[in-house]
Amino acid sequence: MRNNLDKLFFPSSIAVVGATDKKEKVGYAIFKNIISGGFKGKVYPVNKRLDYLEGYKVYHSVVEIPDEVDLAIISIPIRYVPELFDQLGKKKVPAAVVISAGGKEVGEEGRKIEEEIKLKARKYNIRFLGPNCLGFSNTIINLNANFGIDTPLKGETAFVSQSGALFTALMDWALEQRIGFSYAVSIGNMADIEFGELIYYLGKKKEVKNILVYMESLTNPHSFYKAVKEISLQKPVVVTKSGRAETGQRAAASHTGAIGGKDFLYTALFDRAGVLRTDTVLQLFDITDSFSKQSLPKGDKFVVITNAGGPGVMAADEFDRLGIKAAQLSEKTLMQLNEILPPVWSHGNPVDVIGDASPERYRKTLEIISKDNNVDGIIVIITPQFMTKPVETAKSLIEVTKKSDKPVYCVLMGGVKLKKARDMLESSNIPVFETPEEAVNTMYSGYIYNRKRNLVKQDNFLLNKKHPEYENVKKIIEHHLNSGKTVLTEYQTKQIISKYGIPINETVSSNNVEEIISFARKVGFPLVLKIDSPDILHKTEANCVITNIYTEDQIVRGYEEILRNGKKYKKDAVIYGVIAEKQVEGDYELIIGSSHDDLFGQYLMFGSGGIFVEALKDVSFSLVPLSEIFAKEMIISTKIYNLLEKGFRNKKPVDISRIINILMNISKLLLDFPQIKEMDINPLIVKGEEIYAVDGRMVLREKIGNNSVLISDIGGDN
Amino acid sequence: MRNNLDKLFFPSSIAVVGATDKKEKVGYAIFKNIISGGFKGKVYPVNKRLDYLEGYKVYHSVVEIPDEVDLAIISIPIRYVPELFDQLGKKKVPAAVVISAGGKEVGEEGRKIEEEIKLKARKYNIRFLGPNCLGFSNTIINLNANFGIDTPLKGETAFVSQSGALFTALMDWALEQRIGFSYAVSIGNMADIEFGELIYYLGKKKEVKNILVYMESLTNPHSFYKAVKEISLQKPVVVTKSGRAETGQRAAASHTGAIGGKDFLYTALFDRAGVLRTDTVLQLFDITDSFSKQSLPKGDKFVVITNAGGPGVMAADEFDRLGIKAAQLSEKTLMQLNEILPPVWSHGNPVDVIGDASPERYRKTLEIISKDNNVDGIIVIITPQFMTKPVETAKSLIEVTKKSDKPVYCVLMGGVKLKKARDMLESSNIPVFETPEEAVNTMYSGYIYNRKRNLVKQDNFLLNKKHPEYENVKKIIEHHLNSGKTVLTEYQTKQIISKYGIPINETVSSNNVEEIISFARKVGFPLVLKIDSPDILHKTEANCVITNIYTEDQIVRGYEEILRNGKKYKKDAVIYGVIAEKQVEGDYELIIGSSHDDLFGQYLMFGSGGIFVEALKDVSFSLVPLSEIFAKEMIISTKIYNLLEKGFRNKKPVDISRIINILMNISKLLLDFPQIKEMDINPLIVKGEEIYAVDGRMVLREKIGNNSVLISDIGGDN
Repeated sequence: MRNNLDKLFFPSSIAVVGATDKKEKVGYAIFKNIISGGFKGKVYPVNKRLDYLEGYKVYHSVVEIPDEVDLAIISIPIRYVPELFDQLGKKKVPAAVVISAGGKEVGEEGRKIEEEIKLKARKYNIRFLGPNCLGFSNTIINLNANFGIDTPLKGETAFVSQSGALFTALMDWALEQRIGFSYAVSIGNMADIEFGELIYYLGKKKEVKNILVYMESLTNPHSFYKAVKEISLQKPVVVTKSGRAETGQRAAASHTGAIGGKDFLYTALFDRAGVLRTDTVLQLFDITDSFSKQSLPKGDKFVVITNAGGPGVMAADEFDRLGIKAAQLSEKTLMQLNEILPPVWSHGNPVDVIGDASPERYRKTLEIISKDNNVDGIIVIITPQFMTKPVETAKSLIEVTKKSDKPVYCVLMGGVKLKKARDMLESSNIPVFETPEEAVNTMYSGYIYNRKRNLVKQDNFLLNKKHPEYENVKKIIEHHLNSGKTVLTEYQTKQIISKYGIPINETVSSNNVEEIISFARKVGFPLVLKIDSPDILHKTEANCVITNIYTEDQIVRGYEEILRNGKKYKKDAVIYGVIAEKQVEGDYELIIGSSHDDLFGQYLMFGSGGIFVEALKDVSFSLVPLSEIFAKEMIISTKIYNLLEKGFRNKKPVDISRIINILMNISKLLLDFPQIKEMDINPLIVKGEEIYAVDGRMVLREKIGNNSVLISDIGGDN
Repeated sequence: MRNNLDKLFFPSSIAVVGATDKKEKVGYAIFKNIISGGFKGKVYPVNKRLDYLEGYKVYHSVVEIPDEVDLAIISIPIRYVPELFDQLGKKKVPAAVVISAGGKEVGEEGRKIEEEIKLKARKYNIRFLGPNCLGFSNTIINLNANFGIDTPLKGETAFVSQSGALFTALMDWALEQRIGFSYAVSIGNMADIEFGELIYYLGKKKEVKNILVYMESLTNPHSFYKAVKEISLQKPVVVTKSGRAETGQRAAASHTGAIGGKDFLYTALFDRAGVLRTDTVLQLFDITDSFSKQSLPKGDKFVVITNAGGPGVMAADEFDRLGIKAAQLSEKTLMQLNEILPPVWSHGNPVDVIGDASPERYRKTLEIISKDNNVDGIIVIITPQFMTKPVETAKSLIEVTKKSDKPVYCVLMGGVKLKKARDMLESSNIPVFETPEEAVNTMYSGYIYNRKRNLVKQDNFLLNKKHPEYENVKKIIEHHLNSGKTVLTEYQTKQIISKYGIPINETVSSNNVEEIISFARKVGFPLVLKIDSPDILHKTEANCVITNIYTEDQIVRGYEEILRNGKKYKKDAVIYGVIAEKQVEGDYELIIGSSHDDLFGQYLMFGSGGIFVEALKDVSFSLVPLSEIFAKEMIISTKIYNLLEKGFRNKKPVDISRIINILMNISKLLLDFPQIKEMDINPLIVKGEEIYAVDGRMVLREKIGNNSVLISDIGGDN
């Protein structure tokens, strides 16, 4: 069994390997940081060439240290680290921080050294951070075991950064902003300890109220998911991940084929794991600060209390931008407000308490509104007008907020005149913003995060039960794979998906025109004719699609034309025959796709089809296996959802549960068959109550990696 | 001729009417602000009940003042103001600031008093600010003639606020942020001096480098347009206008009928006047600060120089979010950078100069890049890493930036360690941001603003020349108006617009089925049949549209069915007959609409039709008359533009100039006929090279107000 991380974060004794008297060196900075931070444990500098350093006896090697060593902090050149690990093993040192750069970030040679270190670490059961990290800080025991950052303030936030530069920058910024931390960790190359385990470890600490992460990439989404899902339901886990440039939206455009970027899979993973993703690093802090100070709003009905009209309108504008409606105050609230506010008050939300509002008027207004059940959160705006008493107003607000079960945020619009009030509010756990927009946005993020976590709580999926048609489909897929044909035609794809409960329009494929005519007699006109060839995937481009077939005569002529055009398009194309299908004109065209990512496994895409998908990238993603709640979420996240749900002109609303069902069946299919590398149903046509997969394709693969499904190993080891 | 505003903003002597010794009163605050700000002119407090105030002799009425008075600042109850204006008239006081509240903002009674004040002002030729304002500040002559704000710092910005609370809040905030002003004006109710004139006046001052405006509403868009267009081409005019909630997007949804909100017309006006609109008040300052410090980028090709990878990725992410591409460095630049940077540098943009970058390395990198012609703007990121020397780096950057013809912004990611460098950069006119995203966003705003101003320079339109078909269409419109029918049917609308050069699909209306059959023989099948009735506008709802008519027999049956259903839908409906038209299936459905606003006059809407317009509000607006450059801009602003321009799958690109031409013709029609109250062409169908107006309607109006067209009076008086 691997050691846990206690010896690393709570060492009784530390060896600083590479400690030096050269002040411009990292080894000096770390040693100095540790000894000057108030750490109560023992510290042993290790350096071959020195005898004393800052009054400490220097050891020439780790093995010479007379006592037990819990933690080695290493800043020697990386090429010496594997050998050093042998010594650590001999000395039974259970934990290390490898500051040394030159690991996999510099290429093949570094990757090899890193592998060597990992092997030694496993051999001696040494847990380690890094390489290529700045170290960490544990303010609970005053241990500032890193270089580059000044002693952080104490607090209840844990911060983990994959970038050293960002670690330094944000800790420096936090110091200026008076933001405190319990732990701050520069995680480096994650050769051993990686995000999942570290977040789990920190998340279980009582001194940690929330966890902030700056992430560039994951090495193991599986372990991340398992660890973080548990933690995030207990305390906020907020992540900024850079590298959105290859967004899912963009990827959607290049769908049909390989999806390029994977950033959208991070978003999908975070959604399933209950992690809030922010766009920028400052949001990371702003948002988390507010979340830790006030409860998360249970809904998106917010009230604005203001002593000036303009800022109230700004807040309302922000509601509009976010697509939410201002809370409707109850009759009782309105009556009570009428009693205490001047007659010219706004009589609605935003609640304009008028420019001459006294602290008492603010207090009573907040008291009344905080009892209204229609309200999920309250934003109080103070502008420094002639009659305004900011400090006294702040006092009143603090008192009422303490008794409120709803989150209260403040907006102080101004500067010098409001400084004292701002400090008071902030130190009383009321988040303060400079603009109404920021306050509304942050409160809305709180609601969204609350909602997301509730989804995660309901994210139930079955892993082991096969679909009743499993065996039949298995035969088909194995047949295709055995015959060496990994690209399936529309007809072949429809055969498979229809067995898993995906409705298709009536379709036949034949190389006998008489069969198509009798098909037409059965299903009626109009028909569409298309080529059935694994070698001609862009059927329209090859002039191998004919629509509006209304007569048997047209069938005969169309049949011949398609075969002729197919041959012309690709001389040696294998042609199975001609597909005939009932022509369906839908109210809406949708698309469902799936693909596979080496790191994240199989995933699904849902969105608007046709011109929409191309122009608007109106698609959403989730990982396999899907649960009903996240299938619904995929649909809700698209723009077309509004039309589907409400209908549009003479088009009726669509029964969303039927689309959920289709997504669930596709997820089942993918879970049952990791051999499915890619799949598209495009379009999935919706017409009133009917839904049909009208066209599709599938690509199979022989070789199946370990990570075919993200969450398959849930409940396994961790 | 009305006085100009010199006596108001540069008075030699001021009477403070309502000055008092009661320290909690506005009259005291103003007086105190004036006498303690360093104003060199004469100040005369006026108060019936006092003899001396703060060492000044108090006059019991304005007329008693022995000298000339240039400016009266008035804080007595508003009901006494009309009478006071008589005295000002007698005393020949040319300017006033009416602080007193209680004007039109309180309702009918206040509106009357305000009218009275206006009449007196006109009689005596008194120019005045307010009522219901806080006054103004002119730092050039140290005149802080207002209540509520502390003496502002000197600067080159003019700030105008329509909200008193925002005026106080933002000036207080600016003081804390060390932002200076030449003028700051609380404009109040604008009974006399309004935005247009004030911006023009301030814009012509050499001490004003840029103008910031907080606006809630305009009383006269016409004068605003004329005044501000001239100024904005000389110096930035940046406006925050609250009240977006009724956005154009939302309005588009409720189109077909009255468009509710008008906020989108402000955006349309600002675009035509060269004004940059920001979403929030803080952006107002951030953006303008950057624009005044560095030149506006000429294009959107930006380079990022950074000593850390993460922040570079964040900047690149922001490029992606904004839909722009990072600048491609020239071969020469890359070669030069190879010579001075360590081998592991990023070899591209973002230019990662590596964590150990010295000030000299930053300097050389910036020097090389600032000479690359592919680059429009440069963002330099500094993170406080172990080897980083922030102050020395700042010095290097300042030196190079002085010689650069491209804007340079800095991002300092950190806090205490970067404070000194930040101060140095800011005082050397280099804007400093906390995050890469903010810097990229602001630089992009600069490009957008530059681009917008260039559009305004090319905004040429003809006002007087009538269309050759003017007389013919005039007869038709007069005929409809004379017959009392103001709602025109599709057929009638098509008759009018086709004369103005809008292509329509072949259409006939007849109450004789034989005529329709011979129409079919001429144009061929398929046809669509619809009812032609001014009383049945929702033809589909009334079951009065039949598509896919392929035979003469179907014509006969369809004709009868439509008439039958029309009668059933509305018993007493006037039915002209049945419209038959060639059925057109398009690649794209567009919509063009127009309506009229009492304040802004006639305006146009362009956008995606069908499901798009409903789900996505993909529309843009502009004012009449349109110019070619803004017709194009309307098209470019929509999401569907990308599809139109580039084509989509088997759909060919559309010749945008043909749509521009249609918009120009519609604009001409609206300019020629202010009687057109509303018009829709929906859908305008595009199929390859063909474009047709397929359906439409028009509403006429008898009475035409003054403001039928926004820009009709250009070149007139101001």
